[in-house]
Amino acid sequence: MNEPGDVVAAFIAAIEAKDLDTAIGLVTDDVSYENVPIAPIVGKGAMRATLEGFLAPAGRVEWPVARQVVSGNVVINERLDRFQIGTGWLELPIAGFFEVTDDGLIRVWRDYFDMSTYTRQFAALTGPT
Amino acid sequence: MNEPGDVVAAFIAAIEAKDLDTAIGLVTDDVSYENVPIAPIVGKGAMRATLEGFLAPAGRVEWPVARQVVSGNVVINERLDRFQIGTGWLELPIAGFFEVTDDGLIRVWRDYFDMSTYTRQFAALTGPT
Repeated sequence: MNEPGDVVAAFIAAIEAKDLDTAIGLVTDDVSYENVPIAPIVGKGAMRATLEGFLAPAGRVEWPVARQVVSGNVVINERLDRFQIGTGWLELPIAGFFEVTDDGLIRVWRDYFDMSTYTRQFAALTGPT
Repeated sequence: MNEPGDVVAAFIAAIEAKDLDTAIGLVTDDVSYENVPIAPIVGKGAMRATLEGFLAPAGRVEWPVARQVVSGNVVINERLDRFQIGTGWLELPIAGFFEVTDDGLIRVWRDYFDMSTYTRQFAALTGPT
């Protein structure tokens, strides 16, 4: 379970289950959560608040991983983060980089993605009909 | 030189030198060049035309690689693609995924980035003063 690839897989699974207690239990107190288009978010509390905001509008959450590569304490994945919102799905392609400590906690989570791909779909799924 | 990591490093170096003959010589005829926010570009000719468009407004081009990970025929890097435009620099954080054939040619190049981070800076550097 302390293998970096397994830690990240468990973290992703917890988010898909909207189980933030488990997810936050897998990160360091000073975790740096970096959505590259915006400023880094530092610390468990700030990460949890941000994730709650992302997950709140979603019914189901599916983050299928197309590719995962582990190199030492670094885990890299290509994902399609999917959020069921209203009657549709928001789909966001992501490149994620994770740094995992020797005791199996995520200390850096950095996601590269196109913000407008998110905001455009979010507006379409939540806007006036 | 046929090692995947070396092929990608040579490709990046050629782009920094604006040497498209060398860069295009390192990709397959049916290369898929995927800037994730937009549609994939397929084939050497289309890739070359696209790169010419990206590089034309730039004086110097620097793509420093902060991290490169190789797994089999896959090369992943985190880069800061920098373009000198006018009196300033456009800087774009990128996560790049490359698939390299056994004979040392890039057949897939997929970059994850935030399009508005590019367009916002480009407008500021080229707009009316």
